Amino acid sequence: MTDTIDHAVEEIGTDPAAAVAGWLASFEDALAAGDPEAAAELFGASSFWRDLVAFTWNLKTVEGPEGVKDMLASTLDHVKPSDFRTSEEPTEADGVTEAWITFETEVGRGLGHLRLKEGKAWTLLTTLSELKGHEVPKRARRPMGAEHGASKERRTWLEKRRQEAEQLGHETQPYVVIVGGGQGGIALGARLRQLDVPTIIVERHPRPGDSWRNRYKSLCLHDPVWYDHLPYIPFPENWPVFSPKDKIGDWLEMYTRVMELNYWSSTECTSARYDEEAGEWVVVVRREGVDHTLRPKQLVLATGMSGKPNVPSFKGMEDFKGDQHHSSLHPGPDDYRGKKAVVIGSNNSAHDICAALWENDVDVTMVQRTSTHIVRSDSLMEIGLGALYSEEAVESGVTTQKADLIFASLPYRIMHEFQIPLYDQMRERDAEFYERLERAGFMLDFGEDGSGLFMKYLRRGSGYYIDVGASELVADGSIKLISGVGIDRIAEHSVILSDGTELEADLIVYATGYGSMNGWAADLISDEVARKVGKVWGLGSDTRKDPGPWEGEQRNMWKPTQQEGLWFHGGNLHQSRHYSQFLALQLKARYEGIPTPVYGLQEVHHLG
Amino acid sequence: MTDTIDHAVEEIGTDPAAAVAGWLASFEDALAAGDPEAAAELFGASSFWRDLVAFTWNLKTVEGPEGVKDMLASTLDHVKPSDFRTSEEPTEADGVTEAWITFETEVGRGLGHLRLKEGKAWTLLTTLSELKGHEVPKRARRPMGAEHGASKERRTWLEKRRQEAEQLGHETQPYVVIVGGGQGGIALGARLRQLDVPTIIVERHPRPGDSWRNRYKSLCLHDPVWYDHLPYIPFPENWPVFSPKDKIGDWLEMYTRVMELNYWSSTECTSARYDEEAGEWVVVVRREGVDHTLRPKQLVLATGMSGKPNVPSFKGMEDFKGDQHHSSLHPGPDDYRGKKAVVIGSNNSAHDICAALWENDVDVTMVQRTSTHIVRSDSLMEIGLGALYSEEAVESGVTTQKADLIFASLPYRIMHEFQIPLYDQMRERDAEFYERLERAGFMLDFGEDGSGLFMKYLRRGSGYYIDVGASELVADGSIKLISGVGIDRIAEHSVILSDGTELEADLIVYATGYGSMNGWAADLISDEVARKVGKVWGLGSDTRKDPGPWEGEQRNMWKPTQQEGLWFHGGNLHQSRHYSQFLALQLKARYEGIPTPVYGLQEVHHLG
Repeated sequence: MTDTIDHAVEEIGTDPAAAVAGWLASFEDALAAGDPEAAAELFGASSFWRDLVAFTWNLKTVEGPEGVKDMLASTLDHVKPSDFRTSEEPTEADGVTEAWITFETEVGRGLGHLRLKEGKAWTLLTTLSELKGHEVPKRARRPMGAEHGASKERRTWLEKRRQEAEQLGHETQPYVVIVGGGQGGIALGARLRQLDVPTIIVERHPRPGDSWRNRYKSLCLHDPVWYDHLPYIPFPENWPVFSPKDKIGDWLEMYTRVMELNYWSSTECTSARYDEEAGEWVVVVRREGVDHTLRPKQLVLATGMSGKPNVPSFKGMEDFKGDQHHSSLHPGPDDYRGKKAVVIGSNNSAHDICAALWENDVDVTMVQRTSTHIVRSDSLMEIGLGALYSEEAVESGVTTQKADLIFASLPYRIMHEFQIPLYDQMRERDAEFYERLERAGFMLDFGEDGSGLFMKYLRRGSGYYIDVGASELVADGSIKLISGVGIDRIAEHSVILSDGTELEADLIVYATGYGSMNGWAADLISDEVARKVGKVWGLGSDTRKDPGPWEGEQRNMWKPTQQEGLWFHGGNLHQSRHYSQFLALQLKARYEGIPTPVYGLQEVHHLG
Repeated sequence: MTDTIDHAVEEIGTDPAAAVAGWLASFEDALAAGDPEAAAELFGASSFWRDLVAFTWNLKTVEGPEGVKDMLASTLDHVKPSDFRTSEEPTEADGVTEAWITFETEVGRGLGHLRLKEGKAWTLLTTLSELKGHEVPKRARRPMGAEHGASKERRTWLEKRRQEAEQLGHETQPYVVIVGGGQGGIALGARLRQLDVPTIIVERHPRPGDSWRNRYKSLCLHDPVWYDHLPYIPFPENWPVFSPKDKIGDWLEMYTRVMELNYWSSTECTSARYDEEAGEWVVVVRREGVDHTLRPKQLVLATGMSGKPNVPSFKGMEDFKGDQHHSSLHPGPDDYRGKKAVVIGSNNSAHDICAALWENDVDVTMVQRTSTHIVRSDSLMEIGLGALYSEEAVESGVTTQKADLIFASLPYRIMHEFQIPLYDQMRERDAEFYERLERAGFMLDFGEDGSGLFMKYLRRGSGYYIDVGASELVADGSIKLISGVGIDRIAEHSVILSDGTELEADLIVYATGYGSMNGWAADLISDEVARKVGKVWGLGSDTRKDPGPWEGEQRNMWKPTQQEGLWFHGGNLHQSRHYSQFLALQLKARYEGIPTPVYGLQEVHHLG
């Protein structure tokens, strides 16, 4: 009996619904009163408010009561937030109360997530989900398709679609031009189409999906299907866990067609210039050999966060008599059977290419210059992603949208703290595997702070391999490994290493990664604009390839840059899906003339 | 207090969960004991057990205890049903208790639905959902895509797919050939692909979806999106309510590609013959001008339940100097602006074509020879379909699968009783509309028993128009109407009616409907086989164009016919989706050599 009473008291004391309701009421009172200070007091000393567009017209994380106060002082007057409610029953575990919330602003509706610790906010996520009066026409709002009744002015769907395709970019100008028609450009194009923003996607390949199809033939997605959905049309329930590259290519092609995107294939963007006076871009594209000038207000570079190859310049490269190319241009192993290949690099592409060469009886050597983080695909799926992106997660009600928001709710500043224990688990689980690799001479790391793959991806977009089989070949010597050396020079038929070793080679693959996306801005626009916007990607974590100071969000991605009307979009399929929503809403608001005062426009600390 | 007690007693007395549990336990006991008589006693005097493949390897409805006893006496020994359970909480309303059930048989797993009245079964639906050991590789069973590990025998997805496409129909034979690559053939092809049954779909048009694209340009689906989903890839949530024909064409094209169907387009099936000795078909197809012979074990005609045009033969047709064609060949109104058109017929196509002609300033006259059932699209959506197929239905948890099973659970014998009140409602709601039409001389009906559109569709597949606007044009005289007359003959520039009226015409459209699908069997195979299988479609309702005797299920559709290895598939998108499951399982079982003793193979009462 005492037990029962104690339990009841405890339940009342920590009733998560009441705690959240109380907090939200106080928060809303402070906001309604226009009192940033009072609102800030509801946040813990160590706390994070991450806002995706709803308050800041930016992607922004502010920290602690001071950060909250500063942000609200700048935004409260025009944002006019209201109507904060929970959308499902709050929960409590380990002293943290969690709640899903909805809210409104003057111009939009939002979704959010709140974590309370000891009655104060620890993390708050606010995201803009739609603009009032500009909702996506889906579900109950879906278009009728047929226009009932009879009219002598009727045009059919096909006639309208054809007319639009003929006129856009000629008689009429798109509001947005997206350079790059891979998954990023396609996902953003689909969002903009649904929001009725005239958009042209420019892609140099003949068909949507070719940027996947043209890569080495054994390539499959390294991320599982649950993580990879595009907006609006999820992969079907029979879709493979890891899409083969040609299959994902076909999906992107059909998606582009079915979503009715204005997709200019076989079209290369050759230059872009911002016409300050007109407030628009002058974009020159060559479409099937003919130059066109487009004049969009907004220019999005979606050329791939891994789009611009880092081609190294080693002494003697010009003398090499065999085949040599960057990994992005590697055609696959078929032509090299029985020959000798040297692959310089030890990340994802290097491993995939080495394994495919070995499978085709090529004598292959991997040259590892610096340490690499290896994580086994199974372990990553189960320990790293399973809670949010897996069949089990779907079964237990974690929809893709929910998973994306949970992931987004973890502030980058403390994300590594959540990641480290997961990678400790993987390290233990796969201890024997890692031992075998080290015995073969492979230089391993788990990131400078042991936070593993995802943080490496966010910080630098490189430095890892998700093992789907190549590591065993390295461990057992099938793929020969030379590690801890540099390249001295390339000779006619060999690679000469810094320790003097000479590796005979018929083929050299430079799996040397990719540069910052503002390299594209330099090529297409100007060095000046590239310097003005600065480095793209990374958090400012002060780890290798991601210098400080701390920036709080990914540099220049999916948000306003220092160059008016210039945006960067991309990332993996998850990011292309999730962040295309926020970039599309930012563009739509500008298209509709809705004021978009940006809070905390990022500063430039690094040029590229 | 008395109230409360009474209420409690009442609740116990009618507890639907207990009632269902009790019934299922008795039912399973009787089945386990191999006692058809005991099982039959659990059914009411007026009762219906509809089985889709699970017990009968057929689509079969048996009636009353006698029907149940007969069916079980023939099937119980080999079916070995077991493990009947409810899958959600049973409900009770108006004296009928309803339950969703699952069960197993010796070879498969099933879903079902049960309605009890006064403790006895009123309706029972049993459906086969999968074969044990041959489950569809979806969700947790989805393929990996990438094969982890390294192997010198590795072939990529693309290499395998290409090899299959090159070999199937040449070095290797398909187990199934589907003639007709419209929605029916495509949906069945997708199911068979997922079940790993080698299949070729033969389609005369160049691209999947062309059978829609080639029709008159104003055509949109008359059924709403919720009713139209294909298997595995539902339409996205932004899909229009009524798909324009070219948009559905594009969807079918991408679906065929993404589902990896072996789809031989630009291929005409020119003949088929059953080789009794070999137990296989000899199917000759002309693919891009070259003849191939295919030797499948199973031949499916999916040429459209509205596939074979009824072209009338009126006196003088050969003398007509203008354009004349069957509605299926009508190109749309563009070439007829300012001219005079006569459309013979008054069903869906006639109305759509008349409206499009009027919209393009054609002087158009509709000749109505017999009465037509008209139902307004809005009313049909709200009253006829809304409970099962609508955004509201989806919101309230009625998934497409559930809607299909609820619909399937209503036995055809009594379905009109459920339909009549709905059409009474529509008649009342739209009374003024119907009055206007009748004032214009239009001959209306609601089916012989007032059961409206869906029963007309099931019984004869014709005799109605879903009004999306043309009826107002008829009512206000924009479309001229001549009704209650026949055609006497066609002259050089006119149509002469049976009452002597002469209608000038530059264009005559014969919107005269379609014949029975066994007409295709006559063309492709032989008159003998066409007669052997008999009329396709209809229930034997003893109403116009659907002569008795009562057959209980659609004649010859989706189930074994009197011709070994010959099947008919098709219908609207709903039927193509729903029944392709049962046809695919029947074919898969045969492919795997699982015994499929057919109970109650249909008899032939009508030749065509």
